[in-house]
Amino acid sequence: MGVNDRFLRACRREPVDATPVWFMRQAGRYMPEYRAIRARHTLLDICRQPELAAQVTLQPVDRIDVDAAILFSDLLLLLAPMGIPFDFVKGEGPVIERPVRSADDVDHLRQFEPRDELSHVLETITLVRKELEGRVPLIGFAGAPFTLASYAIEGGPSSNYAKTKALMYGEPKVWHKLCDMFASIVGDYLVAQVEAGVQAVQIFDSWVGALSPDDYREFALPHTSRILEAARATGVPVIHFGTGTATLLETMATAGGDVIGADWRIPLDDAWRLIGHDRAIQGNLDPTLLLGPPERMMDGAEDILRRAAGRPGHIFNLGHGILPETPVENVQALAHFVHGQR
Amino acid sequence: MGVNDRFLRACRREPVDATPVWFMRQAGRYMPEYRAIRARHTLLDICRQPELAAQVTLQPVDRIDVDAAILFSDLLLLLAPMGIPFDFVKGEGPVIERPVRSADDVDHLRQFEPRDELSHVLETITLVRKELEGRVPLIGFAGAPFTLASYAIEGGPSSNYAKTKALMYGEPKVWHKLCDMFASIVGDYLVAQVEAGVQAVQIFDSWVGALSPDDYREFALPHTSRILEAARATGVPVIHFGTGTATLLETMATAGGDVIGADWRIPLDDAWRLIGHDRAIQGNLDPTLLLGPPERMMDGAEDILRRAAGRPGHIFNLGHGILPETPVENVQALAHFVHGQR
Repeated sequence: MGVNDRFLRACRREPVDATPVWFMRQAGRYMPEYRAIRARHTLLDICRQPELAAQVTLQPVDRIDVDAAILFSDLLLLLAPMGIPFDFVKGEGPVIERPVRSADDVDHLRQFEPRDELSHVLETITLVRKELEGRVPLIGFAGAPFTLASYAIEGGPSSNYAKTKALMYGEPKVWHKLCDMFASIVGDYLVAQVEAGVQAVQIFDSWVGALSPDDYREFALPHTSRILEAARATGVPVIHFGTGTATLLETMATAGGDVIGADWRIPLDDAWRLIGHDRAIQGNLDPTLLLGPPERMMDGAEDILRRAAGRPGHIFNLGHGILPETPVENVQALAHFVHGQR
Repeated sequence: MGVNDRFLRACRREPVDATPVWFMRQAGRYMPEYRAIRARHTLLDICRQPELAAQVTLQPVDRIDVDAAILFSDLLLLLAPMGIPFDFVKGEGPVIERPVRSADDVDHLRQFEPRDELSHVLETITLVRKELEGRVPLIGFAGAPFTLASYAIEGGPSSNYAKTKALMYGEPKVWHKLCDMFASIVGDYLVAQVEAGVQAVQIFDSWVGALSPDDYREFALPHTSRILEAARATGVPVIHFGTGTATLLETMATAGGDVIGADWRIPLDDAWRLIGHDRAIQGNLDPTLLLGPPERMMDGAEDILRRAAGRPGHIFNLGHGILPETPVENVQALAHFVHGQR
């Protein structure tokens, strides 16, 4: 099998033979071969053992016709070496033992060298690149400061980010210190990932849609920009992703990124107009469409491809990650369908 | 004290002496006098006992300088008489015993007469109107079909509405039958509330921002329109509210409502342009701003008032409900501040 560079070409807005496709959480619980491994290992074990993480990263490449692999890892891995231990609790997601709530908490956090303390991730990258033999490019990733801070402060997932915003509004210096620390570490971490072999990176600011545009500019953008700048300097394409960002897309594009991710809440052509046609766009099918009848899923995909038509630079993806209850056949059929629409 | 008609005038886009203000969840856990009652009664007890519900409805009117009272009740009250029993579980919110998941489940639901089975709500309205003695108008409310269906199908709150959308996409006839039932009942219920004495009504489609614009048009709008039409026919002003609706506002306005509610994710002037200046607008301060320093809260309020200036028809409110951890003094200071900016 030859080298598939559709994904990288689309990131650079070069013409492609078919729209490239990959899926957020393309490795994960919806796959029986992943569940088989999870039955014997915790999520953190898989993330921390390069052989397991590499194996899981490759599972969807073998099964689904995707045009990129994405490192199997977790946004929160960097919290533990900073001094914020956490675990994944069944049915609840991440639980942080002692959430960050004060100036004192932030003062006690430590910078660290990702090349040392997250070396297992870099080993995973080396292993995956070797196994892939150039079949498809490998995407690395990390979280953006707002999203990371929201976990660190709330102590887990949140519906309203009340504690996060209370700290942000109430102690802006503490907030900026925390986010500055995240920005430094994430910047280094992404550079290390590229040096280890990833061929593109995605910055996940998954929860930033909770902010107003003004708050985004004040509290998130300066830190995310630093990360995007560090990533850009590596020379690989950078994807900048969030959800619920209809009113933030213009500003997210100014923050940086060769490719901007959008979710299903905004039609793809409207989103592309907002971010500007000098950027590539990634998205934006509602992941719940993969739970329903294939015909409706295809109709949704067709509508997105129609809205993207006429210029290079569209990477097909969902607006957020594949849901655990998704049938594998639907993911396979969707990738096949996207490739077939030329 | 004279009759305060600022709120009703603003709903009709008539000039006012000061911007009217009220708050979603202005009666609730942030108030010590509410917590004192909750210590002795469950939430459902309070909703179902007219004397208690009336007392709680009036608490913020006595304490905060609001220009409207809103009935203390819950969106989900109508589920039980339909045959969907539920309870509120501490720390988890509503829990529905047997969620609605199939055609058979929907076939077993029953239409009912709100004048009979929710007569306690109508009694509360009579009591509140009597106690208010015309000081401020009383707002009634009900949920919109998408939001009600999401609770009925998920069985409680959700982060991704996977089960709701799976039913919607997979069994559209079942979905429409369920929402049609909600629309009939909610329409009757709002008419009964107006007959009992509410002087305006708000339709809460709190979670509709999870839908794409196309899905909104297909699955939510037809049912919400029916309710808005029934409410409009009563002659009282109708407020149509949702969150995360930046890309839905134009369509929500076509669905109906004299006043459209917006949340903080979109600047108020942008939202007003989208819904059209032939409608009034309600909103849109981030409720988490009430957790932080008063200066920042006032800055946020001032920005909203500035964006609303120059035409009548703005009702100040938050973008969603007051959070339980909000200091009462901040709510008082905010209402005072809004009234002072002329």
